[in-house]
Amino acid sequence: MAKRQLKLGANLNGVGNSISFWRHPSVPINASVSLDFYKEQAKIAEKGKFDLLFIADGLYINEKSNPHFLNRFEPLTLLSALASVTSHIGLVGTLSTSYSEPFTVARQFASIDQLSGGRAGWNVVTSPLEGSALNFGKGEHPDHALRYEIAEEHLSVVKGLWDSWEDDAFVGDKAGGVFFDPSKMHPLNHKGAFFAVQGPLNVARSRQGYPVVFQAGSSEPGKQLAAKSADAVYTAPETIEEAKAFYQDVKVRAAAYGRNPDHIVIMPSLGPIVGRTQEEAERKYEEIAELVAIDQALLYLGRYFEHYDFSQFPLDEPFPDLGDLGQNSFRSTTDKIKREAKEQGLTLRQVALRASTPRTGFIGTPEAVADQIQQWFEEGAADGFNVRTVVPNGLADFVELVVPILQERGIFRKDYEGGTLRSHLGLPVPQNRYAKTAEQV
Amino acid sequence: MAKRQLKLGANLNGVGNSISFWRHPSVPINASVSLDFYKEQAKIAEKGKFDLLFIADGLYINEKSNPHFLNRFEPLTLLSALASVTSHIGLVGTLSTSYSEPFTVARQFASIDQLSGGRAGWNVVTSPLEGSALNFGKGEHPDHALRYEIAEEHLSVVKGLWDSWEDDAFVGDKAGGVFFDPSKMHPLNHKGAFFAVQGPLNVARSRQGYPVVFQAGSSEPGKQLAAKSADAVYTAPETIEEAKAFYQDVKVRAAAYGRNPDHIVIMPSLGPIVGRTQEEAERKYEEIAELVAIDQALLYLGRYFEHYDFSQFPLDEPFPDLGDLGQNSFRSTTDKIKREAKEQGLTLRQVALRASTPRTGFIGTPEAVADQIQQWFEEGAADGFNVRTVVPNGLADFVELVVPILQERGIFRKDYEGGTLRSHLGLPVPQNRYAKTAEQV
Ligand SMILES: Cc1cc2nc3c(=O)[nH]c(=O)nc-3n(C[C@H](O)[C@H](O)[C@H](O)COP(=O)(O)O)c2cc1C
Ligand SMILES: Cc1cc2nc3c(=O)[nH]c(=O)nc-3n(C[C@H](O)[C@H](O)[C@H](O)COP(=O)(O)O)c2cc1C
Repeated sequence: MAKRQLKLGANLNGVGNSISFWRHPSVPINASVSLDFYKEQAKIAEKGKFDLLFIADGLYINEKSNPHFLNRFEPLTLLSALASVTSHIGLVGTLSTSYSEPFTVARQFASIDQLSGGRAGWNVVTSPLEGSALNFGKGEHPDHALRYEIAEEHLSVVKGLWDSWEDDAFVGDKAGGVFFDPSKMHPLNHKGAFFAVQGPLNVARSRQGYPVVFQAGSSEPGKQLAAKSADAVYTAPETIEEAKAFYQDVKVRAAAYGRNPDHIVIMPSLGPIVGRTQEEAERKYEEIAELVAIDQALLYLGRYFEHYDFSQFPLDEPFPDLGDLGQNSFRSTTDKIKREAKEQGLTLRQVALRASTPRTGFIGTPEAVADQIQQWFEEGAADGFNVRTVVPNGLADFVELVVPILQERGIFRKDYEGGTLRSHLGLPVPQNRYAKTAEQV
Repeated sequence: MAKRQLKLGANLNGVGNSISFWRHPSVPINASVSLDFYKEQAKIAEKGKFDLLFIADGLYINEKSNPHFLNRFEPLTLLSALASVTSHIGLVGTLSTSYSEPFTVARQFASIDQLSGGRAGWNVVTSPLEGSALNFGKGEHPDHALRYEIAEEHLSVVKGLWDSWEDDAFVGDKAGGVFFDPSKMHPLNHKGAFFAVQGPLNVARSRQGYPVVFQAGSSEPGKQLAAKSADAVYTAPETIEEAKAFYQDVKVRAAAYGRNPDHIVIMPSLGPIVGRTQEEAERKYEEIAELVAIDQALLYLGRYFEHYDFSQFPLDEPFPDLGDLGQNSFRSTTDKIKREAKEQGLTLRQVALRASTPRTGFIGTPEAVADQIQQWFEEGAADGFNVRTVVPNGLADFVELVVPILQERGIFRKDYEGGTLRSHLGLPVPQNRYAKTAEQV
């Protein structure tokens, strides 16, 4: 059998997923709404044989939001535009189950899956920001537990709709005048606690069966949803120990659902800064960290805590006690911030700067970065990584300098073998629930 | 001033907007979900200097639906994919106000508008099919009048969200650390009968201001909505007299709202069949009409009448009396079918065959077709046409044979002059409602 292969995603963020990266000289000021920018990044990632492009999302902004969040492409339209200028790479977009209709979601992802010849993926999220409710006519943002209950039903409806048509439903017999076989078209007739959807969907399955389902959200119900229903998990551990515990936890949960643990791909976030020498890499990190003004860093931190105003506290004293604040939005992140501040005795300034420009440890020479990747991969901390482009050159550096080493070491593909995202990730094509197996026929 | 110019849209329909076109030898059997097919049609239309591509849509299917409706691309994802492989042509997609959230709709169209550099358009519809409610967890399809009330509020919210950012909001001062000017970001704070949306939208305006708003639906409230709020109208008159009356009616209504009637572009549907000789054109029509089996023609007719079963009636007797049936779905179409059947004493067979393969009259030599187009255009029946591709070659024939004649006659552009859809259609860029005029500053 072939050696286990690393998976790589390119998490594209326009002007950057920090409050300050946009100030870097290499960042085009309109990157978040520039198709040319995304096309170029997509081409670099595809040249690097990446498994997938990954687009995050959010449904609420205010004047304190990250620059990239204020004015950016909507993920599904962006990925569709990239579908026609790429040929192999997967296209994964974030969409919230808290503010969408399963019929529309199933349809748009199925459509991207057809447009791209089986390269679509959906990153299922529940929307952390309370303000999202205000943009969708809802009195209240559903609480954390309820959001995950909705998510579970939403995702099961979407998968049901994706099975509306058996793979051999479309006969296309021109002479006989038979376009399709009605016995292979299946309404879903779902009636649940949150959704009632009849179907059938008006898009058939692509050659990968379903779009790949990612899950991002690391709380208990988040992990449970992933273990039960996701093909891949996006997570953001800060240490290899934390990553190993998470990895093991999710794989065990998946096995408890009777699933093959290899069929749930764990992809931590990675923000590598690569230099030809260690000094060059450190210089690049400094160049980036210095872009953040401290008041900005405080705002950034506040974003995780329902836009809490941290400027009321002294900067160089211990991080304040926040009680339950943050429990109902980015719970796993806020719990961790509080825990680390306490354990390591950090000041507010230190917490804010770390939050705005995290030092992931993946900063160094190509060999050093490749070593760490390999270690995480081989020691059961990750099946691959979702590589955040710290500044635009970050992705090009990674592809030019690190990827060849990983290929050399035999843990990353030298070329694409299959054409679908499922084939890149080593995931099976899901059987249509209505298809008769050999025995039944 | 330059001579008034004809507008042309290419209404792309995959395997065809009839029940039978898919049987034609020239139609790829998977056309409705083939990006290659749509790319090729888009390139032909852009070569022909068309103003826009137009994608219709629907939210409910059953086993009686047209082949194209069963398994087709979702319009917004399709148009996004076409945005990156075209450079000038407009991209208009149909989306229903009855089953969508204004925030999502505003965002996705604004995103396509950014992706395409100002070439997006939204065809506002209210969904004729009752069954749509079943796919969106609604007990009931809202009735005709209510649908238009919802549509009006929905559209006004979307336009409000499109003004969230003034055009000079994004300063991008890297040295000073100022990404945007918060005084140029505007929440909408809408609270109405059907929607409550705070905003701001997380996408800025493109260089055409708003995506172009089309309206399709020709009943009283449909015309009223168009006159008040649309930039363009898609309509389907069968005769030049009917077209003139409609044209005049909508322009007068627009003027009554204080609008410049030139800023609402009336584009009837056109399904031309062009032959190098009249005989060749007639042969092509025969070839197409013969693809329809009579039981299929009855099903097709039934689709307009809530999937009414016409097979219970004798084929060669007068068209049956249907009472109010059809009033709550495709009202303008069903009213017309009933009226003509009565006035012209048509049998059920005749009505069904006409419905499935209409003879629009635009069947003939390139000169004859150009003559009719010019007549409609100059006599106030149309500002342009939305050209339905009867079979795939139909668009290529039209571009090759008819467009050069229209160009020769000076009523159609020889090349694109502007880069946005608004500029093609001669529409002004809407002023941002929050922007201060010269006097106010
Ligand atoms: C690595 C990671 C990436 C995420 N990306 C998004 C995102 O792009 N958009 C979003 O709305 N939420 C995102 N989330 C938030 C979660 O989906 C979820 O809404 C929130 O974190 C609460 O879930 P949790 O408590 O399970 O972590 C992300 C979470 C994690 C851990
Ligand atoms: C020329 C034309 C094209 C239309 N295209 C669509 C369409 O693509 N999708 C849709 O749901 N409805 C479409 N409609 C239907 C209308 O939007 C509307 O839902 C229905 O006809 C009822 O409106 P009316 O009575 O005002 O005509 C179209 C109507 C017309 C006249």
